[in-house]
Amino acid sequence: MSTRLGELVERLGGRLIGDADAEVIGIAPLSDADASHITFLSNPRFREQAAQTRAAALILSNADNEALSSIRAGARIVVDNPYAYFAHAAQWFAAQTAIPAAIGIHPSAVVDPGAQVADSASIGPHVTIEAGARIAENCVIGAGSFIGRDAQVGAGTLFHPRVSFLAGCSIGERGIIHSGAVIGADGFGFANERGSWIKIPQTGAVCIGNDVEIGANTSIDRGALTDTVLEDGVKLDNQIQIGHNCRIGAHTAMAGCVGVAGSAVIGKHCTFGGAAMVLGHLTIVDNVHISSGSLVSRSIQEPGQYTGFYPLAKNAEWEKSAVIVRNLASMREKIRELEKTLKSLSEEKNDQSSK
Amino acid sequence: MSTRLGELVERLGGRLIGDADAEVIGIAPLSDADASHITFLSNPRFREQAAQTRAAALILSNADNEALSSIRAGARIVVDNPYAYFAHAAQWFAAQTAIPAAIGIHPSAVVDPGAQVADSASIGPHVTIEAGARIAENCVIGAGSFIGRDAQVGAGTLFHPRVSFLAGCSIGERGIIHSGAVIGADGFGFANERGSWIKIPQTGAVCIGNDVEIGANTSIDRGALTDTVLEDGVKLDNQIQIGHNCRIGAHTAMAGCVGVAGSAVIGKHCTFGGAAMVLGHLTIVDNVHISSGSLVSRSIQEPGQYTGFYPLAKNAEWEKSAVIVRNLASMREKIRELEKTLKSLSEEKNDQSSK
Amino acid sequence: MSTRLGELVERLGGRLIGDADAEVIGIAPLSDADASHITFLSNPRFREQAAQTRAAALILSNADNEALSSIRAGARIVVDNPYAYFAHAAQWFAAQTAIPAAIGIHPSAVVDPGAQVADSASIGPHVTIEAGARIAENCVIGAGSFIGRDAQVGAGTLFHPRVSFLAGCSIGERGIIHSGAVIGADGFGFANERGSWIKIPQTGAVCIGNDVEIGANTSIDRGALTDTVLEDGVKLDNQIQIGHNCRIGAHTAMAGCVGVAGSAVIGKHCTFGGAAMVLGHLTIVDNVHISSGSLVSRSIQEPGQYTGFYPLAKNAEWEKSAVIVRNLASMREKIRELEKTLKSLSEEKNDQSSK
Repeated sequence: MSTRLGELVERLGGRLIGDADAEVIGIAPLSDADASHITFLSNPRFREQAAQTRAAALILSNADNEALSSIRAGARIVVDNPYAYFAHAAQWFAAQTAIPAAIGIHPSAVVDPGAQVADSASIGPHVTIEAGARIAENCVIGAGSFIGRDAQVGAGTLFHPRVSFLAGCSIGERGIIHSGAVIGADGFGFANERGSWIKIPQTGAVCIGNDVEIGANTSIDRGALTDTVLEDGVKLDNQIQIGHNCRIGAHTAMAGCVGVAGSAVIGKHCTFGGAAMVLGHLTIVDNVHISSGSLVSRSIQEPGQYTGFYPLAKNAEWEKSAVIVRNLASMREKIRELEKTLKSLSEEKNDQSSK
Repeated sequence: MSTRLGELVERLGGRLIGDADAEVIGIAPLSDADASHITFLSNPRFREQAAQTRAAALILSNADNEALSSIRAGARIVVDNPYAYFAHAAQWFAAQTAIPAAIGIHPSAVVDPGAQVADSASIGPHVTIEAGARIAENCVIGAGSFIGRDAQVGAGTLFHPRVSFLAGCSIGERGIIHSGAVIGADGFGFANERGSWIKIPQTGAVCIGNDVEIGANTSIDRGALTDTVLEDGVKLDNQIQIGHNCRIGAHTAMAGCVGVAGSAVIGKHCTFGGAAMVLGHLTIVDNVHISSGSLVSRSIQEPGQYTGFYPLAKNAEWEKSAVIVRNLASMREKIRELEKTLKSLSEEKNDQSSK
Repeated sequence: MSTRLGELVERLGGRLIGDADAEVIGIAPLSDADASHITFLSNPRFREQAAQTRAAALILSNADNEALSSIRAGARIVVDNPYAYFAHAAQWFAAQTAIPAAIGIHPSAVVDPGAQVADSASIGPHVTIEAGARIAENCVIGAGSFIGRDAQVGAGTLFHPRVSFLAGCSIGERGIIHSGAVIGADGFGFANERGSWIKIPQTGAVCIGNDVEIGANTSIDRGALTDTVLEDGVKLDNQIQIGHNCRIGAHTAMAGCVGVAGSAVIGKHCTFGGAAMVLGHLTIVDNVHISSGSLVSRSIQEPGQYTGFYPLAKNAEWEKSAVIVRNLASMREKIRELEKTLKSLSEEKNDQSSK
């Protein structure tokens, strides 16, 4: 299904230079695009490649447009943020070919009579929905998912197959939860009594805002006495663990394999590289960026980029550096002795000189 | 549903000072509790806050009780271990409001005629139970769970929705397995033959003791020839990986994202911080505590706390330190040269002086 | 069910020394084997133990056979690669006792009329298969699995219970996917627009070769515009995350908890220790081996073993070394000052001497 460039610009904005009646069927990278595609330039480094693209049209910034205007004749869409425009355009094309989910409740699903499911929702095969749960308009609940007692799913939210969304949890509108995710398992709370662990019941829930996406096989624990909270626009990748009573600020994004221990409070607009780890009961302010593989062991009060991982080396070199790291205290001691010796030597010398 | 303080003390022990007929409906933190709650003081740091709580009663230690007796008039329950008492009390209140699982086998469940399911067990929707499996009294098997051939589930054990408990595995009494956990997948065993990997069949099982809790999306592999073993009282958080033929000692607890490679033998009463990693074929004695984000690369023979993660810093500072870490061998070399030069300088000097 | 040694050698090769009519029922480690077992010696360190084994037969190399021939009288099978032979033999014995999956589609499964399922395939309870999917001969699809629209599963491939294999993904022949794995969730792709994240539709798929094994609760994301690719013979353990558009070369193996960020290109015959992490948009050549817990932060162009993790120490010692690591730049500065002072001291001295 093709789209006129003119229609695209009407819907998504941008200034079109070129034939509004040209038709495209999708979006492709600079190198792969042909005359049926539109493509985009989001980094000036690729200007030369962009000049040579065979795409029907090129999304680009004003600066890039000026730089390329003398060497590229084809159609262009000039925008403020070419990468975001690419995302919107890709959404548009994806929507053209998307197969809508079957509306209604699949006969194999088990929906408690005490649950409320909107008529426009799609409930897949082998789904279980317990009493008191509420599924709003246009939701899609994928095959084999479980929605617990009194849970709430906001309008237009999509659960891929095999999601667990446990009792009392809630998610806002336009959310996406990927397959295998578990929302609302018990937090890890125990009291030690003479060497044994006594379970502390986890009676809070997980409360998730609008426009949140949660990756495959990610786990978010319910709170102990109060709730675990994900604010609007949070994006979590796969294999992430969020402990009980955490609060994650709006529009914060975490890449795969991140772990956040209980009661951490994380600001808005933060980013976490893959496998970053955050200890519990600490605070991270807004606009903090944690590099991959780094462990946050205390609160961060100042925005910025933070890092802490051991640099990779050939194993033989690492063996050497690791031994020294282990003995750094003795190295420091040696330096202190050197300083002392040198100081006394200099003083003696000065004494001699002054004699 | 409220509970008389007198009844609570009859059930859980402790010395009540105050009105045994006062009624409470639940437990809450010092700051949130009101006259319908009981609260607890487990850390003397919060004595002042405890003195001002509006709670109907305060659980506290003998020492704290003496310190507070002159300034707090309200009811108190004096106990040896206030935090453990809090856990027991919270369990009591949670049990008052818990909705019991529906006893019996849900019509959508597929239970092989060769499986044994106790009459008091609850088997949820879309569950599969294979031949030879045995589900004991008062078990709850959550929706969409799978229980393989000849597996055994002990009395009172709870599987949350979507658990895989594979052929031949066993778990004792009062266990809890959270959603998405996979118990008994094949261990990772291959022989290399001219560059290709030949699978080694994994014919052991997973054998789990009593009072074990296993977190969401955690995986525990079956043994290669013998079993993987979790002893009584082990507590595992979410997103944990336990390799084949590991043995984890009684009452050891692991926080989220921990990984243990195959054939590791871990003692009793150990704790592992989040994302700690343990290499295979090593031994850790009882009462070892591993900090978050630390990799255990050899056996540990002595109890204590062990740590090994790169300290977090602003990225610009990390860049500097990381370069030096990589070149520590040359720094050590420089120090050695300094020592040599300084030594020869001192000796010359002494020679001169002695002339 | 027992096997004659003669039959074993006919099927698997190797040179039998001893009674071809002796029968064995399985394979066991050197220490556990009795007269009904065959055992194996793959490491010369255990020659003494091998000499004393009670096993009916011993698989060993030519060199070990010569070393042991004077002291061990029992049957031997002499082979090039005893560990690989052990794997093949173990597969043989496992096949003797394996219970074949029930052929056909379980009545509780929901299979779209537009899907193609081979007659010899086994589709378990509560499985969902969408339109256009193709399940080839002798496949086994475990209970509760989901196979999306147009997905393809090659002959003889086994899905354990509760696998998600999403729309458009494909896997070749003789593959194994363990419980809880999610193949084809959306890659983590967003454009930032004034602080909010705009989703980039992920329209590629996951394309998996022959003889690939994927562990429990592992996630492999679909590509953004093109596919994520796993070549033949790749072996992935549990709890692994593979980002969108990665390519993993043939016969590469990754242990548990590994994470690979998007668009990483990894060579053939590589190995990754547990919890190793690989950043995105980088290249690793063939035959690279990454140690456990190490983060690969840039491309690797040379085969070999690479490592980068902070060495474990008693916590008190780590506290000391970590402080110094953080201040390594100032330590280097001190060394430079020492060098300068020492140099000027030496020069003065030489000046004096030359006077």
